Amino acid sequence: MTFERNSKIKPVTLPGFTELLPNEQIAFNKMVNTIQQSFELFGFNPMDTPIIEKAEILMAKGGEESEKQTYVFKKGDTDMALRFDLTVPLARFVSEHINELIFPFKRYQIGKVYRGEKPQKGRSREFYQCDIDIVGRGKLDIISDAEIFQAIYHTFEQLNIGKFVIKINNRKLLSGFLTSLNIEDAEIANTLHLIDKLDKMDMDKFVGILKEQGWDPTTVARLVTFLELSDANMAQSTLLSKLAEQNVINPLFQQGLSELQQVTKYINDFGIPQSEWKIDLKIVRGLDYYTGTVYETFLVDQPQIGSVCSGGRYDNLAEYYTDQKLPGVGISLGLTRLFYQLNELNLIDKKSHTTAKVLVISMENLLSKALQIATELRTQNIPTEVYTDETTAFRKKLEYANKLAVPFVVIIGENEARDNTVTIKNMETGEQKTVDGKRAGEYLQKAQNPR
Amino acid sequence: MTFERNSKIKPVTLPGFTELLPNEQIAFNKMVNTIQQSFELFGFNPMDTPIIEKAEILMAKGGEESEKQTYVFKKGDTDMALRFDLTVPLARFVSEHINELIFPFKRYQIGKVYRGEKPQKGRSREFYQCDIDIVGRGKLDIISDAEIFQAIYHTFEQLNIGKFVIKINNRKLLSGFLTSLNIEDAEIANTLHLIDKLDKMDMDKFVGILKEQGWDPTTVARLVTFLELSDANMAQSTLLSKLAEQNVINPLFQQGLSELQQVTKYINDFGIPQSEWKIDLKIVRGLDYYTGTVYETFLVDQPQIGSVCSGGRYDNLAEYYTDQKLPGVGISLGLTRLFYQLNELNLIDKKSHTTAKVLVISMENLLSKALQIATELRTQNIPTEVYTDETTAFRKKLEYANKLAVPFVVIIGENEARDNTVTIKNMETGEQKTVDGKRAGEYLQKAQNPR
Repeated sequence: MTFERNSKIKPVTLPGFTELLPNEQIAFNKMVNTIQQSFELFGFNPMDTPIIEKAEILMAKGGEESEKQTYVFKKGDTDMALRFDLTVPLARFVSEHINELIFPFKRYQIGKVYRGEKPQKGRSREFYQCDIDIVGRGKLDIISDAEIFQAIYHTFEQLNIGKFVIKINNRKLLSGFLTSLNIEDAEIANTLHLIDKLDKMDMDKFVGILKEQGWDPTTVARLVTFLELSDANMAQSTLLSKLAEQNVINPLFQQGLSELQQVTKYINDFGIPQSEWKIDLKIVRGLDYYTGTVYETFLVDQPQIGSVCSGGRYDNLAEYYTDQKLPGVGISLGLTRLFYQLNELNLIDKKSHTTAKVLVISMENLLSKALQIATELRTQNIPTEVYTDETTAFRKKLEYANKLAVPFVVIIGENEARDNTVTIKNMETGEQKTVDGKRAGEYLQKAQNPR
Repeated sequence: MTFERNSKIKPVTLPGFTELLPNEQIAFNKMVNTIQQSFELFGFNPMDTPIIEKAEILMAKGGEESEKQTYVFKKGDTDMALRFDLTVPLARFVSEHINELIFPFKRYQIGKVYRGEKPQKGRSREFYQCDIDIVGRGKLDIISDAEIFQAIYHTFEQLNIGKFVIKINNRKLLSGFLTSLNIEDAEIANTLHLIDKLDKMDMDKFVGILKEQGWDPTTVARLVTFLELSDANMAQSTLLSKLAEQNVINPLFQQGLSELQQVTKYINDFGIPQSEWKIDLKIVRGLDYYTGTVYETFLVDQPQIGSVCSGGRYDNLAEYYTDQKLPGVGISLGLTRLFYQLNELNLIDKKSHTTAKVLVISMENLLSKALQIATELRTQNIPTEVYTDETTAFRKKLEYANKLAVPFVVIIGENEARDNTVTIKNMETGEQKTVDGKRAGEYLQKAQNPR
């Protein structure tokens, strides 16, 4: 019996870990660039914390779910963990560097986070989050809540992935309203969690659960009427008036209403069209963490995806690490999941397998000319690739260009070499033009190709 | 005795894990963008593999050093590891997706890698590598070796971090020469490792070690003479002639010489000045992996940093995962370390604490105007921040602008609000100008500020 001495290890990624092929990666990176540019346009500055943190830092808050899903490991005597979001690292970062930062601290972070979830379609264990936050030292003006809104509105507009609507609410409204109904504090938290599930549950079921929990029917009816206020198709200003008319005698409610009035006033000032945002009193966000404004973002034509970008205002970012009060507001866009969903729906343009705008190909023995032209085009900042294997048949070189789906091919044949010209082929339209070699860059810079 | 119920967890990163403050991060990201743009200019396409791979994939090659330094952990029954470079993931990726890729496959990857080294100055356990590789299926033209050279030359030129020199060699030259001296195969590998250490050891010591190992003095002298050929200040073409004149009767040597002649011919065709590259016969790269061309890059004024960008040609990228022969050539730039070194030398411009070009500040009660102007500037793609806390004294707002080191401040006072103008202050020169509010964007787009 002989053993296979030369056996190979099967080249696969871990279950639940995904990666993209070049054409998908190019499309994904375009989205990343759009998001990054939009964040910077609004004055958010880059941050890049380690992917590994001390386990005690990431586990400070606890919670069974997050502990189960977090990758924790030991190296020597050190307990380490992979970050499961970008908010806990932000809290650690701001507390650690509090005296080196300029407040209000506006940062964005686009990075990978890790959750050991059951692998399932569209849920990767390693995925990108794109976060923006504004953190104040001691205090933070309510206008920051409107700025976050504006930045995320601009981002989705730039992403150009279809109609979207940003839903906004203020948790103080709901908490205050529930208090005014004489609901006890502990039950308020439970009720908010239940309201958070209303997108997956109909109102009848919700009513049934509350009644089972011993709520009296009048109180339930009042809550339902309140929650459904925002379902009617009315101007946001009308809704705000209606909320004021509820005469809820509760200071938290009144504060929430005032905050929502201010935030929506600024949103209008920013000129954001009414069709692309709405107040939704049923939006609460699952996390207890949020204390005021909350946001969720939906793609109008893909409601089944759920919220693709969510966040809100929090009173105290870093209570586990510092006594300093650090109020903030932020939002997080789950890019890997969004990309996956859009890709499944065939809404990602992934025709192109190259970031190059031009492929230079030459007939036999003219490679030096091809390299010369490529160098000139690159000097003019035109991303250029050269087909370098001279022995390949010309037909095969064009096949390669087609496979890459490069927008333009620059051809150097015998005539071109003799005349110091090049022939430029628009691979989308098939159009060909022979131009002076020195003017190739100029021609290409003007030439339009939808790819 | 009472316990501190409210004790805080100390907010610190793990030892050996580093992160940057905003001004440093902005400077770092500029370098990343430059590198990425340069890679794309040469037709390299993005790739982004998971940071975690199956342990057996990363450990396929073995080697005690890499095993000790690799972060390995278990989640459930699965042995996972954090990637320690970007080459092994490339090998896994290409073997896994071989039938979905277009060859020659040109990719870049800029990403974090992990090594559990002893923490020391300038050595982070998490650091960025920026890699480009060209991988062929079955074969890969020698011109790819010149393309990698050209891309990395352009990258360092764009990085603008001072004079640099790229050293190039071909391992076949040395291996062939050693064979022609009747050195046995096993000893050739050892000798190459010893030559690799010549930058930290003087020639006398090198000679001493070889003699201790039983080399006869004539052979040692011949090797030293050979290695020192490239130390003399001569044109590369002269050196190549001298190498040819050695009359080394060994096919590997002759192949290496021919490859080096071709690669340097193309380098000259690319118009790369002789002052910025050189053939150095003592460059071998430590890794056994390389089989032909090898590169190292040095900053002329900072020789103590050592090579900042190295790589070479390999015959077989993915032998542990596939029977397919995948020759390639690539290079890797260790960005975190380079940035650290330049930062230590005060060569990083980190004046600016914001990516915004403009900060808009307003006198009391004019915030709405400020937000309006900010929105207009952003529509014109000018990164803009607004000072949103109206209650802050004007003096403090200017202090904030100074701290941020934002290039321009747009001021809205009572006069400006009345006249629909804004006053634009160049924070570098102190120059101020009041312009029509509608023309602020135009003015700012033209205005130059070195920051």
